[in-house]
Amino acid sequence: MPSKITLLPQSLHEHIGKPVLIHGWVHSYRKMGGIAFLVVRDGFGTVQAVVESAEALAVCESLTRESLVTVAGLLVEQQNVMQGAEIQAHSVECVVAAEPPPIEIDRQKTFDKIDLDVVLKNRSVSLRNLNTRAVFRIQAMIGKLFREFLESLDFTEMHTPKIVKMGAEGGSEVFKLKYFEDVAYLTQSPQLYKQIMVGVFEKVYEVGHVYRAEEHNTARHLNEYVSLDAEFGFIESEQDIISLHQDLLKYIFRGVRERCKPELEMLKLEVPQFTELPQIQLEDAISIVKDEFNYTCTKVGDLDPEAERLICKYAEQKYGVEIVYITKYPVKKRPFYTMPVSDKESHLTRSFDVLFRGLEITTGGQRIHSYEQLKENVVKFGYKEEDFEGYLDCFKFGMPPHGGFGMGLERLTKQLCLLSNIRLASLFPRDRTRIIP
Amino acid sequence: MPSKITLLPQSLHEHIGKPVLIHGWVHSYRKMGGIAFLVVRDGFGTVQAVVESAEALAVCESLTRESLVTVAGLLVEQQNVMQGAEIQAHSVECVVAAEPPPIEIDRQKTFDKIDLDVVLKNRSVSLRNLNTRAVFRIQAMIGKLFREFLESLDFTEMHTPKIVKMGAEGGSEVFKLKYFEDVAYLTQSPQLYKQIMVGVFEKVYEVGHVYRAEEHNTARHLNEYVSLDAEFGFIESEQDIISLHQDLLKYIFRGVRERCKPELEMLKLEVPQFTELPQIQLEDAISIVKDEFNYTCTKVGDLDPEAERLICKYAEQKYGVEIVYITKYPVKKRPFYTMPVSDKESHLTRSFDVLFRGLEITTGGQRIHSYEQLKENVVKFGYKEEDFEGYLDCFKFGMPPHGGFGMGLERLTKQLCLLSNIRLASLFPRDRTRIIP
Repeated sequence: MPSKITLLPQSLHEHIGKPVLIHGWVHSYRKMGGIAFLVVRDGFGTVQAVVESAEALAVCESLTRESLVTVAGLLVEQQNVMQGAEIQAHSVECVVAAEPPPIEIDRQKTFDKIDLDVVLKNRSVSLRNLNTRAVFRIQAMIGKLFREFLESLDFTEMHTPKIVKMGAEGGSEVFKLKYFEDVAYLTQSPQLYKQIMVGVFEKVYEVGHVYRAEEHNTARHLNEYVSLDAEFGFIESEQDIISLHQDLLKYIFRGVRERCKPELEMLKLEVPQFTELPQIQLEDAISIVKDEFNYTCTKVGDLDPEAERLICKYAEQKYGVEIVYITKYPVKKRPFYTMPVSDKESHLTRSFDVLFRGLEITTGGQRIHSYEQLKENVVKFGYKEEDFEGYLDCFKFGMPPHGGFGMGLERLTKQLCLLSNIRLASLFPRDRTRIIP
Repeated sequence: MPSKITLLPQSLHEHIGKPVLIHGWVHSYRKMGGIAFLVVRDGFGTVQAVVESAEALAVCESLTRESLVTVAGLLVEQQNVMQGAEIQAHSVECVVAAEPPPIEIDRQKTFDKIDLDVVLKNRSVSLRNLNTRAVFRIQAMIGKLFREFLESLDFTEMHTPKIVKMGAEGGSEVFKLKYFEDVAYLTQSPQLYKQIMVGVFEKVYEVGHVYRAEEHNTARHLNEYVSLDAEFGFIESEQDIISLHQDLLKYIFRGVRERCKPELEMLKLEVPQFTELPQIQLEDAISIVKDEFNYTCTKVGDLDPEAERLICKYAEQKYGVEIVYITKYPVKKRPFYTMPVSDKESHLTRSFDVLFRGLEITTGGQRIHSYEQLKENVVKFGYKEEDFEGYLDCFKFGMPPHGGFGMGLERLTKQLCLLSNIRLASLFPRDRTRIIP
């Protein structure tokens, strides 16, 4: 009896020389003379089946792409293919016949030329493309590594509400919903909740959706995305957060490098390596892009997309790594809870952004932990104190110096996998006009 | 120099005999004669500091509960306390003074008597209660074990949208939101997306929020909760799903038993052990509660809460375990995508519920994978085919026999921790009237 195997690239070789049975989809099919080459894809990998028997050939003749087949045969070594093995098929059975799909997913060059809208409209099929699958395998690994790293440092996982009232700033950038007799909002960040939870567990993290009702329709914005959030207490300054974040990136990059070898090979990707990442104060960053690239940043108190691109280029040239921490953003451009640098530099904050290959992937910083100072800022920033009642409470009842960051999972995936559009880093992206499928 | 330590129960003993420094909150304080006993709590545990020096005593005199302190001293063995150690304090420093909190969190008996509304209104403080923290540590462990188990079987983690249009059934049970010029809904389940993803990765899982706009205000319903979802392909029948689910429960229960010892001890909990869980057909379950307990189920084609309680009681009496799989729900009571048992039993489905200590914690089953059959059912159930366009596509293009389940994280936590109300299994519960904090 042949044993049922899956096509996991890492373990396929274990079955060489043995009779095997595989269930999968018809990925591609071609015939040369009296021999047919059937590439079967399962959820984990692909394998070529060489079909020579008349009976099996007859089945193959009527197979459509994406049909489900069961193939039985002998797995033999084959140096000429990526998998290092192929199947000498004894039998091919069609289990479910498929309609020919509207887009071709097996030839990468053809697939890469398909219009983004068509790719996303036909998502259930386009996600079956091998390179596309590899991207989401890497994404799953990033999430796993994020959790692994933080758990090794005794962070506790939490789940905080996405339907919120507290602290929602209102305005056009939040999605509003009717909550029975009340009005609520979809959260833009777990910020307030993760601070409350520092008062409980000291070190917390969350992997969850956040929402931005931005009117933007760019290659870098999603209206719903996954935020990798961490927050922790008893810090000395924002440098503790930067240091932990840097170690996290190192852990994620090393992990992807070591555990996603087949995916990286398939996507022809190199994962950055570094020992120490540069930090540049915002003010200096603006000067650098002016001096080095003769580019005048169009934003005040922040970098514009072109300046972000250029400062990463500078970091690569000067430090050999395309990642940079931009620090000391002005108070005016950061949320009310952001810790000022000092009495001397009270207009600047202990906050930072992380830019990776020209795109912001993380925002973080130290937060204010004094009840009085925070309450004052709520008013100073034009909010009503009562809207932050449940939040301000926790500061009244003892909060340590703390801070944290939020990292966009899709953005990190996009930059790591060199994707041209953030939509390609989301299984079913939500953008300005897209809520189907 | 004393080394800074955290109060993790598992590793506290390593520091016995050494000078230590701890940062934490004032959990409780009492004075007897010239000696003060200060219990300090950090994010991980508690320890008693014995204070005798005049200087340190003076600091202690003015300490309020929940103030942040730094305590330095010698950690010594102490058999009479749970931690097995206490600190002979040399110095106590108040870092942040707190207002006295509105509820007392340190004495469990007092805390347990506080009205649920007061507990939830003062969530930032009530979450600091030790038993409450233990519940959420167990909850975090459940999530971790869920992922660990599925990843060991090569399931891939995914993130699917919570803002949906596709397949939303409308009506009063979904939250509706304005999505720019369009109307969208908050998802009730990742069901349709996880099926699409079986066509991609074969085996997928997700940990994410789902939403029910139910008018219910009961001890078992939340309007936003975390769903532990899994779906996989190439199954023979719903028995493959039940078998995997049973192994998952076994893994979670064993994991909690082994890795949450301090929490279980604190909560005085026993985690169920079993080798095989009973399966009872719905029809038989209804007869059993009638015959054994003389209770007539008030629902048709489903169990009512009392019948759920009684059938678990029966399972405990007969099989020694308070968990039972109820199978073969009628077609009429299950969603349109549910697989019928057979042509002979076409009115029953290959679906199941899992009841644990009287409460449904999981719903699952085999799904229809034939495009024609599914399309037919969409119409038969009164939906419009175009509302399922992106979903039905994936069946047109080849889907294997598949199925899965969704398990409510808060419900499992509630039942495992014997909580009286599901709100106590959610950090910041969303119910009929509650969206703050």
